[in-house]
Amino acid sequence: MTAEALAKRELPGPPYYAVIFSSQRAGGGNRDDGYGAMADRMLELAARQEGFLGVESARGADGFGITISYWRDEASIARWKADAEHLRAQQLGQSLWYERYDLRVAKVERAYAKAAALE
Amino acid sequence: MTAEALAKRELPGPPYYAVIFSSQRAGGGNRDDGYGAMADRMLELAARQEGFLGVESARGADGFGITISYWRDEASIARWKADAEHLRAQQLGQSLWYERYDLRVAKVERAYAKAAALE
Repeated sequence: MTAEALAKRELPGPPYYAVIFSSQRAGGGNRDDGYGAMADRMLELAARQEGFLGVESARGADGFGITISYWRDEASIARWKADAEHLRAQQLGQSLWYERYDLRVAKVERAYAKAAALE
Repeated sequence: MTAEALAKRELPGPPYYAVIFSSQRAGGGNRDDGYGAMADRMLELAARQEGFLGVESARGADGFGITISYWRDEASIARWKADAEHLRAQQLGQSLWYERYDLRVAKVERAYAKAAALE
């Protein structure tokens, strides 16, 4: 399932949780260093976790990106955080891929969606 | 203040609020239609609001983007939502700039940051 397909899944109504990962790629992201393959693999793994609701991601040409994964509850987030393969990716991220990152865990309280009207 | 400068401001410790705005630009964002100027202006206006803590934003080449603004409390979000100039931008966004958007209000409960070690 691609990131786009995952993002387009309808989420259930709130409350649910968001893990907000904001990151600046090292060197502006000009060198891949295995990053793309890891990101795809992490998406695939996350989507299989119990309690995973969806993900959305955007990265600009300056190498700054935001990925938000949505989860049913805190327990789902804790399991994903402790996943062995994910732990290795986290370590590589710290040492190789990211110049800086911020991680925030937030409880989504309200949500609205709007799609352009089809005429 | 640029988006980058705002994003690099250190936020206070949680709890605080995040307004997560995910959007798909109409036509993949190939036509500007005044969008860039509006986005800059909204950033400038938001940064002046009481309770504004910071913002971060990323948009990829496919026109999908995520902007997250951070706020001290729900009252700050309500005031910003009702700002007259912001209301006009919201209407234009719905009719002109966005193919689809999702808006989520979330309470940030935990936050971690990591900058690459300077050796």
